[in-house]
Amino acid sequence: MKRLGYLGPPGTFTQLAAEKLISRLDNYSRISCQEIPDLIQAVDRSEIDLAVVPIENSLEGSVNVTLDYLAHKVSLNIAGEIILPINQQLIARKGTRISDIEEIYSHPQALAQCRDYLQKLSDSCQTHRVSSTAEAAELVYRREEDDAVVRAAIGSRLAARLNQLEVIAADIQDNDSNWTRFVVLSRSEDSHLEELSSRESAEEKESYKTSIICSPIKNRPGILHEMLAEFASRNVNLTRIESRPTRKMLGDYLFFIDFSGHLEQPKIKEIIAGLNRKTSHLKILGSYSSLFAGLEQKDLEEERYHEINQFA
Amino acid sequence: MKRLGYLGPPGTFTQLAAEKLISRLDNYSRISCQEIPDLIQAVDRSEIDLAVVPIENSLEGSVNVTLDYLAHKVSLNIAGEIILPINQQLIARKGTRISDIEEIYSHPQALAQCRDYLQKLSDSCQTHRVSSTAEAAELVYRREEDDAVVRAAIGSRLAARLNQLEVIAADIQDNDSNWTRFVVLSRSEDSHLEELSSRESAEEKESYKTSIICSPIKNRPGILHEMLAEFASRNVNLTRIESRPTRKMLGDYLFFIDFSGHLEQPKIKEIIAGLNRKTSHLKILGSYSSLFAGLEQKDLEEERYHEINQFA
Repeated sequence: MKRLGYLGPPGTFTQLAAEKLISRLDNYSRISCQEIPDLIQAVDRSEIDLAVVPIENSLEGSVNVTLDYLAHKVSLNIAGEIILPINQQLIARKGTRISDIEEIYSHPQALAQCRDYLQKLSDSCQTHRVSSTAEAAELVYRREEDDAVVRAAIGSRLAARLNQLEVIAADIQDNDSNWTRFVVLSRSEDSHLEELSSRESAEEKESYKTSIICSPIKNRPGILHEMLAEFASRNVNLTRIESRPTRKMLGDYLFFIDFSGHLEQPKIKEIIAGLNRKTSHLKILGSYSSLFAGLEQKDLEEERYHEINQFA
Repeated sequence: MKRLGYLGPPGTFTQLAAEKLISRLDNYSRISCQEIPDLIQAVDRSEIDLAVVPIENSLEGSVNVTLDYLAHKVSLNIAGEIILPINQQLIARKGTRISDIEEIYSHPQALAQCRDYLQKLSDSCQTHRVSSTAEAAELVYRREEDDAVVRAAIGSRLAARLNQLEVIAADIQDNDSNWTRFVVLSRSEDSHLEELSSRESAEEKESYKTSIICSPIKNRPGILHEMLAEFASRNVNLTRIESRPTRKMLGDYLFFIDFSGHLEQPKIKEIIAGLNRKTSHLKILGSYSSLFAGLEQKDLEEERYHEINQFA
């Protein structure tokens, strides 16, 4: 049995993304891990086979630790991506009335995402920051017998389900444009996940995305423009360009570039050859297809989570 | 008297940057503020005249909260920039021996920057995370009479000086390529700080830098390449390009572009006109000169800090 790791604890949005993927794979067990660096290094050291990590959010931007590990610490491939809407739920013990809630727990980012909703609640209701939405849900579940404080958490439907809580107010985030993009990391270059792709034929590679990291040749004005000419002249669309420090000198950058197309296509091969002449460093992360995932009820079926392990 | 705000508490690296600036300005009082959003909004609301905030670090990359406030929340100008080396010091009460230290306090990032040094210390020496290097220094200073624990902090020389501590090991950071770039924010467009510039003549505007934020016209492949052609065809060097989410949709980005030159130069006017045709949104942050600041002893003279106020 192969092993898929995700950023835990169980019940986070990363687990939701991982479940989307696992439902399309055969024979994978899931393992949660609390830190992105540990998770990425676990793939690198062959302790697990795949890892699902967040790389970008539509409101917060890049997840820098993911980018920096891919650039500086490991040589892994992106085998797929999963794009997931981040819908926050107010979750509590069965029968809890919203007007009775005294304390609300969640990750600081989730609390910030629901600021408008929280302002409409009673002034006596206090918010508390914890390290994940999943931990918040567990905290509401794990109450002492003689503890009469009425608590709620903000988190995913999955977190509610895993902790025997119920959603008492649905989709309470202020902004509906909250999406997170996750990438699936693997070791070997040929392990792009065919299971993730809807179109298999070579002619239809256009639906793939390719990711690279490169560092332009230094001290040459217009070099980034020259690099982008490789794409523009072949009508290849950039879906993203992001800079990160090389960590050598202020003003020295690496570029993370995502574009449409597959490394096996002739025009993409030409682009890579052209970039090789214009960069001092070029790292190919792989070609992969995208899983754009709404959340369906079947993803939430309880029995699918009994085999969750803790990653040591 | 005008008011200059900086990211506090007193003794942080941002105060060091602010002191570099204040030494070149007449008649400014300094005010510390604990949060970047509050500081930026204080300029916007005319509560202070200038603010010094970090925008980029050579190891960590962009300070996203600064970029997002400049893009989405306020219409302020960049009036100058200050580039400062981040050198971490081990600081303690006078006469403390390194081998006796039991507890070391600092900001998590400063602790991470000195990981190699910390690993060489005794195993019994514990590290503790606090919210700033300045708070760490204060904690070492503010010890109860009957408290016999030997403590040290990691922070700036200024933090040592302000808390009557001494540097017991100098420049203990693992990586010497640690620089932070700060920007000076102001309200009115014409208030670029001539005091910061070494060359005043119009012909020498080449030594200036200009910053803009723009959002390319959507759904046009090659649009970023077309935008960069405006710079390349006029031999204008980009010093930085950084993308941030528009916060509207995943895959929709704003670009922060810094380049050499001044808005009053004809070629820069042409570039701005060209970009206007290729962007759906263009915000000009201003032209300014750079203060590349090593740390000199005179910056540390104690008497210069007696007027520090707390920003409410």
